[in-house]
Amino acid sequence: MTQKIRVGVNGYGVIGKRVADAITAQDDMELVGVSDVISDYRITAAVSRGIPVYASTAEGAAAMRSTGLPVAGELHQLLGVVDVIVDCTPARIGATNLEHYRAHGVRAIFQGGEKHALTGHSFVAHANYATALNRDTTRVVSCNTTATVRTLSALQDAGLLTRARGVLIRRATDPWESDHSGIMNTIVPETAIPSHQGPDARTVVPELDVVTMAAKGAHTQNHLHYWAIDLTRPATSEEVLEVLGAMPRIALVRSSEGIVAPNSTIELMRDLGRPRCDMYEVAVWADVLTVQGGELFCTYTVDNQAVVVPENIDAIRALAGTVTDGAESMSRTDAALGVRADFLFRAPHPGQAHSPAGARS
Amino acid sequence: MTQKIRVGVNGYGVIGKRVADAITAQDDMELVGVSDVISDYRITAAVSRGIPVYASTAEGAAAMRSTGLPVAGELHQLLGVVDVIVDCTPARIGATNLEHYRAHGVRAIFQGGEKHALTGHSFVAHANYATALNRDTTRVVSCNTTATVRTLSALQDAGLLTRARGVLIRRATDPWESDHSGIMNTIVPETAIPSHQGPDARTVVPELDVVTMAAKGAHTQNHLHYWAIDLTRPATSEEVLEVLGAMPRIALVRSSEGIVAPNSTIELMRDLGRPRCDMYEVAVWADVLTVQGGELFCTYTVDNQAVVVPENIDAIRALAGTVTDGAESMSRTDAALGVRADFLFRAPHPGQAHSPAGARS
Amino acid sequence: MTQKIRVGVNGYGVIGKRVADAITAQDDMELVGVSDVISDYRITAAVSRGIPVYASTAEGAAAMRSTGLPVAGELHQLLGVVDVIVDCTPARIGATNLEHYRAHGVRAIFQGGEKHALTGHSFVAHANYATALNRDTTRVVSCNTTATVRTLSALQDAGLLTRARGVLIRRATDPWESDHSGIMNTIVPETAIPSHQGPDARTVVPELDVVTMAAKGAHTQNHLHYWAIDLTRPATSEEVLEVLGAMPRIALVRSSEGIVAPNSTIELMRDLGRPRCDMYEVAVWADVLTVQGGELFCTYTVDNQAVVVPENIDAIRALAGTVTDGAESMSRTDAALGVRADFLFRAPHPGQAHSPAGARS
Amino acid sequence: MTQKIRVGVNGYGVIGKRVADAITAQDDMELVGVSDVISDYRITAAVSRGIPVYASTAEGAAAMRSTGLPVAGELHQLLGVVDVIVDCTPARIGATNLEHYRAHGVRAIFQGGEKHALTGHSFVAHANYATALNRDTTRVVSCNTTATVRTLSALQDAGLLTRARGVLIRRATDPWESDHSGIMNTIVPETAIPSHQGPDARTVVPELDVVTMAAKGAHTQNHLHYWAIDLTRPATSEEVLEVLGAMPRIALVRSSEGIVAPNSTIELMRDLGRPRCDMYEVAVWADVLTVQGGELFCTYTVDNQAVVVPENIDAIRALAGTVTDGAESMSRTDAALGVRADFLFRAPHPGQAHSPAGARS
Repeated sequence: MTQKIRVGVNGYGVIGKRVADAITAQDDMELVGVSDVISDYRITAAVSRGIPVYASTAEGAAAMRSTGLPVAGELHQLLGVVDVIVDCTPARIGATNLEHYRAHGVRAIFQGGEKHALTGHSFVAHANYATALNRDTTRVVSCNTTATVRTLSALQDAGLLTRARGVLIRRATDPWESDHSGIMNTIVPETAIPSHQGPDARTVVPELDVVTMAAKGAHTQNHLHYWAIDLTRPATSEEVLEVLGAMPRIALVRSSEGIVAPNSTIELMRDLGRPRCDMYEVAVWADVLTVQGGELFCTYTVDNQAVVVPENIDAIRALAGTVTDGAESMSRTDAALGVRADFLFRAPHPGQAHSPAGARS
Repeated sequence: MTQKIRVGVNGYGVIGKRVADAITAQDDMELVGVSDVISDYRITAAVSRGIPVYASTAEGAAAMRSTGLPVAGELHQLLGVVDVIVDCTPARIGATNLEHYRAHGVRAIFQGGEKHALTGHSFVAHANYATALNRDTTRVVSCNTTATVRTLSALQDAGLLTRARGVLIRRATDPWESDHSGIMNTIVPETAIPSHQGPDARTVVPELDVVTMAAKGAHTQNHLHYWAIDLTRPATSEEVLEVLGAMPRIALVRSSEGIVAPNSTIELMRDLGRPRCDMYEVAVWADVLTVQGGELFCTYTVDNQAVVVPENIDAIRALAGTVTDGAESMSRTDAALGVRADFLFRAPHPGQAHSPAGARS
Repeated sequence: MTQKIRVGVNGYGVIGKRVADAITAQDDMELVGVSDVISDYRITAAVSRGIPVYASTAEGAAAMRSTGLPVAGELHQLLGVVDVIVDCTPARIGATNLEHYRAHGVRAIFQGGEKHALTGHSFVAHANYATALNRDTTRVVSCNTTATVRTLSALQDAGLLTRARGVLIRRATDPWESDHSGIMNTIVPETAIPSHQGPDARTVVPELDVVTMAAKGAHTQNHLHYWAIDLTRPATSEEVLEVLGAMPRIALVRSSEGIVAPNSTIELMRDLGRPRCDMYEVAVWADVLTVQGGELFCTYTVDNQAVVVPENIDAIRALAGTVTDGAESMSRTDAALGVRADFLFRAPHPGQAHSPAGARS
Repeated sequence: MTQKIRVGVNGYGVIGKRVADAITAQDDMELVGVSDVISDYRITAAVSRGIPVYASTAEGAAAMRSTGLPVAGELHQLLGVVDVIVDCTPARIGATNLEHYRAHGVRAIFQGGEKHALTGHSFVAHANYATALNRDTTRVVSCNTTATVRTLSALQDAGLLTRARGVLIRRATDPWESDHSGIMNTIVPETAIPSHQGPDARTVVPELDVVTMAAKGAHTQNHLHYWAIDLTRPATSEEVLEVLGAMPRIALVRSSEGIVAPNSTIELMRDLGRPRCDMYEVAVWADVLTVQGGELFCTYTVDNQAVVVPENIDAIRALAGTVTDGAESMSRTDAALGVRADFLFRAPHPGQAHSPAGARS
């Protein structure tokens, strides 16, 4: 491609800064700038990395300049020079920005904190990239919903899924703000069943029969999901692992290889040199997953800070319409981000799911 | 009753010390003594409360006396003067004690850390008190299994249960040893599905169709269970709450009353003046429980240190054969322990499950 | 004494409910009622224990009655029938109540969340009981300051203290609210040195040369204090332990007896049957305390929920003027609360500080 | 330099893998290989990064090959082709390796888990690089001691230090193993005062008058140190900050810029793109540090996994004797590792310590 997609990111928080890095890593995109209203170390870090920083509001611009931050301009100026804006502002704020984006004729991507109705389209790359092509807006669903759709739609596409009942143990807060928020020495069930993730998954794949229950666990990184799934027919664990392992952005890990909990996957990402030690994949425990007749039981962990990042990149291409094939976009995104380190994350070959040595050969 | 049941407790740990207190609270039992091999504050606390302390081994006796502990004698002497011994030694140790107990003609109760085969009978009072009558031995199942049997057999007895699929988030370690053991800032899935609790529940109620998955959460007290249950027919939440609320040792709590997580139930037990701030009840969230057609979804919390205590008391009566009616034993036990504070734990009346004010009248 | 002191408690939170229980335990005091504005399990627990519950505001009364709570009246009515009110409302609120109390001619005790200037007198029983006699108001200093004054003034009174430099690692939040507040997997230094506790200790004992630095640790119960203290002369650890052990409300514990951290002292309080598992004593580690020439180094733990409770009881007697001798009031309070379990908390005898067995004889 | 120093790393754990990465980043060193006995994800990650992996033992080699790991050879073969070996094996194991290294005529660097007597030389680059030149062995002191020496010797060199009394709140366990080790909801004081770090600092700078007390906090990353320091004369905080800020590997951070706790510095390292999100600097809070007359009070945080890494790199050059000037070695090391991001970590200029805007200009 000759012409790069010009992209801006509004909201330089946990998701925004990761999307900004991922945009920079793509050869068909240009990060024109990021926008926010903060003046502390989080935004000075962006400046130190050479990222043009804009102010989301006039007051923000004044406050940022007062601390010596070099401000490239205000959001409306950023909107004047981009093709796509990725809105990573806090939940519910994005909705108030939509008209602003429309007024500038900029295509906009929102995050899972916004309602489906805001855009009328909710996005998970492998599930519905095609329907997002050339749209003005879409919404990348939340980390929990993204993981749910990745795994359940894989089974759905393979004709295996009847219904799924899940329990989601979410991280309580993000590390950067764990000095003032979070829970301690308890576990907090959500006050309503079903939790929102099940219905939210249906905004992407309406035919899913899924119900979720959720709680907050006393840890700051990664969600842990458990599923009890009725299959359309008796199957084997090898068969199911082949379906899951064949999907991009689903990685198979094994407790037998020392990956026993979310802290293990975080350490692995450190060891692999991933940016910010992020894991973009859903990590399914291959040697814990069990099939009993027509029932599937499994667990996986999700890096809540990173799992939606590749989806945002694909959403940019889909809205821009520069790549019409979702599979092509996903493979470009994943290659740029180093998704799926096959030496460690191995798709099982028939009969080898439980044969680490063989799988290594 | 004229003659009190003479009871000893072997193993003065988390369970043993609570069982000892509960025995003391019964008017038809006498705590003859407790036995252990430790010399630290845990056992000196027993001495300070006037409990006769025995040594489980000769070496233990020497070590304990060397620290100035008044040792009443050795285990074999305690066994010479009791009708029933409650074995609360660490998992797998109890099995090695069985012959010792038999040699003294003492009836013995073991805990869930032992295998069902050790005694051939596993006990939950309301489920199978009758079959334990006058047995030489039984096994009180673990905290997770006890809670599972209490709730699922309640639905089973009401003809409502088809199958239950559960996720159990266990506490990682006990408070007393949390200075050297436990997990930190992660959540650890068990390496096998199904986890042992499902099959274990069937040692008490063989016909239960139950599968469990389990993980350790980063907290030190109480388990949190989630269930997705297929009912035999469509029902209402009020109907289910009536079934659960009518059961002894199941308490209904409401997040609308500020009881939002295990730390709330622990605080409530403190406020109610419960010994050791213990909760003997399974606390089901009445306003979170949901029925969709023929499916039931619910969550409850279990005080892993206390929930098996009343079961041990009933097991003593069952083995001793002094009370033939399980319901009578349970009501005596519960009255002595203050189980079920009705002001706060209210069984719902039809149509009132979600009407706190009405429920209060 | 023939006439009991009539006492009310305004604010039934972490401190208020403990003070209410402690008042009930005294034979020379009558708990007329408690007042608050909450309607959840925390106050229903008070009702279930037979404590008359008043509403602190008219709106509160309406809200509480709407949930079915039996409300005995409003605060002004409570103030009409008490001699002393203990204000345990949240920090800074108490100040707004002072005029209200004065208008009713009721003597008032405030907590450490209020400023010294509010009452002009800050209270720690053994340090300045006499100066509080028959005052209209006083302020019981915070948990950290109370512990600091207890230990440092003991050394001061023995003529041993030159200066004290302390580091206070505070608990991050209280258990009852740890489902929505607190910190996770970090430790948070206060943003200013010195922290307020040092100057606050001087509101009780002006001549103390004390500087404190503080941080919040990732645990929910008990503070841990470390002190580096310059003594007026070289001394021995036995000498210092004798001074500390001779003080009421300072307990000596030993890691050699298994009491190795705050979770151990909490378990010990459970085992001793303390109400709410509370520890009223400052627990100094006798076998960790070290003297090097003229320098003393030591650490102790403080139950932040309970340590000020006996001080509040003594403050009631001081304001009421019914007991003129502070030592007599403290011994009555301590006897009623079971402070200082000598079997476990042993004052060292010369040369026995490190001789557990001997100390036991 | 024409000839690169050939280096091996024995022990690919938390420290070893970081030292290996840091060696690779130096233009005057070649990482010949790493050696260990593990076969899980931690070592497969090294293989996936192209690092030659050796087996530390013959049994290890067999076990590793059995899992399909490509093993380059055994430790003795690695020792045959390196100039320097960095021993990062677990504490006390290194001592058993010394003769092995000597037999191969390889210079060896050990970590702080070993005793000073093993090598007779303990190393912190800016303090005693010169005395390590061309030695056969040295010992890089532990993370806590390294940070203590960096800060205290800076004050010592400036003629400001009389004595230092410190409290060290250590992380409880490392993230990679926090699924099975650590503490929960408590804080654990060490059972002896002084803790070992004070005396250990004197193995590097014998004239330091330093006493430390230590505890384990309930968090998994970074230590937090507090110091009460007697200066040789009254000073100003600006003066002290200038001394500290002028030191390599000491960074000044400010809570006013949002860096309020260790979780903030970890997030900052993520944002700066540091390998493994590591912080090599000691991060001193410039706006918390306080001087009162002749006393200095301050706090800083230490990344226990990373702080010794640059010291190991300098130790390699010192033993190899290729760079005789410690300052030159440190600046080469720091440049290669990106130590001291000046945009965020600013050395204060006189009078500017508390002037962020000015400092930014």
